[in-house]
Amino acid sequence: MSARNLLLLSSSRVHGHGYLEHARAQLEDLFKACHVKTVLFVPYALRDHDKYTALVRDAIAPWGYAVEGLHTKDDRGQALRDAQAIFVGGGNTFVLLRTLYQLQLLEPIREQVLQRGVPYVGSSAGTNVATRSIHTTNDMPVAHPPSFEALALVPFNINPHYLETDPNSEHKGETRDERISEFVAYHSRPVLGLREGTSVRVEGSKATLLGSRSAKLFQSDGGSRELQPLADLSFLLSQE
Amino acid sequence: MSARNLLLLSSSRVHGHGYLEHARAQLEDLFKACHVKTVLFVPYALRDHDKYTALVRDAIAPWGYAVEGLHTKDDRGQALRDAQAIFVGGGNTFVLLRTLYQLQLLEPIREQVLQRGVPYVGSSAGTNVATRSIHTTNDMPVAHPPSFEALALVPFNINPHYLETDPNSEHKGETRDERISEFVAYHSRPVLGLREGTSVRVEGSKATLLGSRSAKLFQSDGGSRELQPLADLSFLLSQE
Repeated sequence: MSARNLLLLSSSRVHGHGYLEHARAQLEDLFKACHVKTVLFVPYALRDHDKYTALVRDAIAPWGYAVEGLHTKDDRGQALRDAQAIFVGGGNTFVLLRTLYQLQLLEPIREQVLQRGVPYVGSSAGTNVATRSIHTTNDMPVAHPPSFEALALVPFNINPHYLETDPNSEHKGETRDERISEFVAYHSRPVLGLREGTSVRVEGSKATLLGSRSAKLFQSDGGSRELQPLADLSFLLSQE
Repeated sequence: MSARNLLLLSSSRVHGHGYLEHARAQLEDLFKACHVKTVLFVPYALRDHDKYTALVRDAIAPWGYAVEGLHTKDDRGQALRDAQAIFVGGGNTFVLLRTLYQLQLLEPIREQVLQRGVPYVGSSAGTNVATRSIHTTNDMPVAHPPSFEALALVPFNINPHYLETDPNSEHKGETRDERISEFVAYHSRPVLGLREGTSVRVEGSKATLLGSRSAKLFQSDGGSRELQPLADLSFLLSQE
């Protein structure tokens, strides 16, 4: 796993910022360190792949990076092998994972990222599929993937867009914490609640919490604790 | 379908009321009309089946109804055939549906409800599984059912615990309306957004909105409209 080079964003949008703007320094650090000039974008979490790829292109082209959509490639396997960096965008996690299974892209992506060290950027659904499984997505299950097991680039689960539920709410639906705790109760696996504006940077066997907010770790024993900005998250990788 | 006799609740809990209390009149109307004295409760959406069955028993025993848990029966098929009424409780919709598939209970329940006219009460997850599919649940996918297709006691989808997202929120996760609209965009099927405290009563080919709040119908053409209390919903059954 020493080749692993990941940036897993909670979200692409953060209140008060333009699209991906809050993550610019994190993206540029990663891309510069790896001499990335062109990013291969995986747009399958949204319906309009051209429009989605254009959105990402418009956001990061001004920073000096070209963006190509994987959906435009005749030979997707070759496109992945040629990729300088892979960016999997957010949207619906179920649609994204089902498409990755349908197009048989899970193993090719895993190989590039884990064996060849190709940088992987995920946002929201793209972060969910980078983890062990999509069991902790917030999305509505509008599509049925053959399994919820995902890329497993890291051995724990993430809940993107994590937030505490308003304690004054009169709504009786389950809170986010109740939902995540339910996953932990069934699976005995840790979940990192990643607030908007934060991300996880993984370099080989080292993982770090980036961004200005804390993250909430739901431990496999049912407890939970807050992890502060720049916290060392490497212990979450050691379950491998 | 003339035998069909359903009460589909958005939730068992409503702010300011005890468990199931808001639905007492609706439940009693149904049970009295069908001479129900004992309810067969299906507790699989939560982890502790005994505790969950006791919760429901404590709620409705004072009204004069006995409650038995399906999980206590050696022969579940016989228990369903003997049932005076079937009540499927809420919890996690994915866990519930996976269990119904594992125990091969979908067809036996369908047969009792659609062919023999056994009354069916569902709440939250129990309402989701009563519809065509669980694609419009709010729950976290903590378990992977072999399919999202469900009992299809009605041919449309319901979103229980429906609520509008606070328009002043700075959170960038998708709103409930965006999630439901995404389902409609992929499937071109209508979804009834059922607010807490409301329910759908189905008698044969007639369906009615019960409760004191309106419901939001997401139409298969992408539009939406509000339906007022006591609205005739029979048109939603005519897709059969």
